Amino acid sequence: MRYVVIMAGGSGTRLWPLSRKGTPKQLLKLIGGTSLLRLAFERATRLVPAERVLVVTGAAYLDAVRADLPEVAEENLLGEPVGRDSLNAVAWPAAVLAQRDPDAVIAQLTADQLIEPMDAFVTALEEAFAVAEAHGDALVTLGVVPTSPHTGYGYLHRGEALAGFASACAVQEFREKPDADTAAAYLASGEYWWNAGMFVWRADTFLTQLAALAPDNHAGVLALADDPSRLAEVFPTLPKTSVDFGIMEPVSQGATGARVVAVALPIDWRDVGGFASLAEVLTADADGNVVDGVAVLHDAADNLVLNTVPDHVVSVGGVRGMVIVHTPDATLVTTLAGAESVKTIVAAVADAVGPEYT
Amino acid sequence: MRYVVIMAGGSGTRLWPLSRKGTPKQLLKLIGGTSLLRLAFERATRLVPAERVLVVTGAAYLDAVRADLPEVAEENLLGEPVGRDSLNAVAWPAAVLAQRDPDAVIAQLTADQLIEPMDAFVTALEEAFAVAEAHGDALVTLGVVPTSPHTGYGYLHRGEALAGFASACAVQEFREKPDADTAAAYLASGEYWWNAGMFVWRADTFLTQLAALAPDNHAGVLALADDPSRLAEVFPTLPKTSVDFGIMEPVSQGATGARVVAVALPIDWRDVGGFASLAEVLTADADGNVVDGVAVLHDAADNLVLNTVPDHVVSVGGVRGMVIVHTPDATLVTTLAGAESVKTIVAAVADAVGPEYT
Repeated sequence: MRYVVIMAGGSGTRLWPLSRKGTPKQLLKLIGGTSLLRLAFERATRLVPAERVLVVTGAAYLDAVRADLPEVAEENLLGEPVGRDSLNAVAWPAAVLAQRDPDAVIAQLTADQLIEPMDAFVTALEEAFAVAEAHGDALVTLGVVPTSPHTGYGYLHRGEALAGFASACAVQEFREKPDADTAAAYLASGEYWWNAGMFVWRADTFLTQLAALAPDNHAGVLALADDPSRLAEVFPTLPKTSVDFGIMEPVSQGATGARVVAVALPIDWRDVGGFASLAEVLTADADGNVVDGVAVLHDAADNLVLNTVPDHVVSVGGVRGMVIVHTPDATLVTTLAGAESVKTIVAAVADAVGPEYT
Repeated sequence: MRYVVIMAGGSGTRLWPLSRKGTPKQLLKLIGGTSLLRLAFERATRLVPAERVLVVTGAAYLDAVRADLPEVAEENLLGEPVGRDSLNAVAWPAAVLAQRDPDAVIAQLTADQLIEPMDAFVTALEEAFAVAEAHGDALVTLGVVPTSPHTGYGYLHRGEALAGFASACAVQEFREKPDADTAAAYLASGEYWWNAGMFVWRADTFLTQLAALAPDNHAGVLALADDPSRLAEVFPTLPKTSVDFGIMEPVSQGATGARVVAVALPIDWRDVGGFASLAEVLTADADGNVVDGVAVLHDAADNLVLNTVPDHVVSVGGVRGMVIVHTPDATLVTTLAGAESVKTIVAAVADAVGPEYT
């Protein structure tokens, strides 16, 4: 049967002080009062019933996930006691589901982006499921059809088409984030897709590859699936690596006899990684200000002003292109242009006044 | 005997959200943890003992004044139930002190500025007291010797010197705030001083002029001195006018046979009217940032960052020349260059979210 695993592990430092250690980006109700996690869940339930949706997240976020997604059963919540990178975030649910259902086919979906239109997403995922079900040697990776020469994503170099499917094709190579010229060349060639970090595979196919390429991880997640009470003991010992580096790249290079197949995601894909991208996806007023919460703006344009404290007023005068975020225990003032350096600011805050503010 | 009355009535909207209806500018501990009022009190006690220092303030601020100046006796605190402009703020204590001491000589001092050096201030006030004591027909006004062609102050046009005193002279004319060219001409001529809004006079001399020029105010403050329990009834009925317009200007024009004498205040006089001037009087760090309270700055220069909330961090990144003020229920973000428009912002806040935030 088909399953969806939503990966919601990131800490989202670049949206501090909205995102916090206790409230990562995916759990923030950023988009009209809805979290990115909830939006991902709504996509997932277009593919499978709610009882076959799993969420992998940090153990510290489990309560927040329960509150945000009451439909997800307790046995489908996987809380990592520590972050051990993406390979383990896909390997653990694969081991769990393989034990529940030897024919499990899993879509590993992210919750970091706004994705539209929903229908194109659903169609692409249906194709990816069909590929994984038809080809027992295939690990399917989703490739977003690029709309710009973006330098912030990894790319997939497409190979030969797979017969019988709309978009499925081999992957010649995974490419790291390119420089601007390379990204422009990728876009012009039409041969490259953005690496979405979303995958579909049969649990048993994935685990076979895992056993061959990352045997310690394989042994660890199997042990966890057998005895969940060993989580705190076993999980921190799992070798830390990414699914691309640990599995997808070696498999795409033919290391193990299996193969990587890419399926096109012809969607509008908007990362909400930082305040600049958040400002782009939210609705601005006539002066270009994006405002949420109690705020009064005067002679101000093109600002992002977010205030999560209801009985506090944020007043802004005579400024442009600023990011102003007010929360109960921390306020950030920076520029939209410089919002990418929020990580550095957060590190400075942790240093200067303590990690409890970050 | 000599008395000092400190006038501490202003609301200080331009320092919002630091200054509030309940905490006017003079009561903010802006300067190394000390309020402007406290600094004024320390000047006053160089002139007279603490028991002869009075404070005129808004009734709403009395508790804050008591906390800031525990040395001031209850009978020396005059709380105006409503603001009725400066004439009544000097007339009321004149009536009160004339009743206590028929020979009272009063220095009416402001608490809006930083004044240095103290010794020059004390010497000038001693001269002013001596003039008022020697000349029963004189209302003494203090004139700050200008150091720049400031367009934000009124000016005194000096006349003939008064024999026997270091700096005392007649006043030919009071001048409103000048334009830049006029201010430059005033400075070049050496004949003009800034109108300090500080006065020294015998209580009886002042009250005689008041009776002639503003009889309703005179009758009102005498009634208050006779029966303080009538404060709430009488004070709001006092005609609202400034001491310059109601008394000093007509007297300087010879309307009543008395005269205005100016005494020089050769001091460094720094108004702390708004955030730009506050930033100038506070100590900046190596990057030109003036910071008070819990704040973390990264790649930021020439900013004024004030945070009054101890368990809240204000973090600022990649900005220059900003004013960022965080208080328990309001945050202001504007530019130092635009800080003069804080009044407008405050009005917008009162409008949009309610006067309780202002």
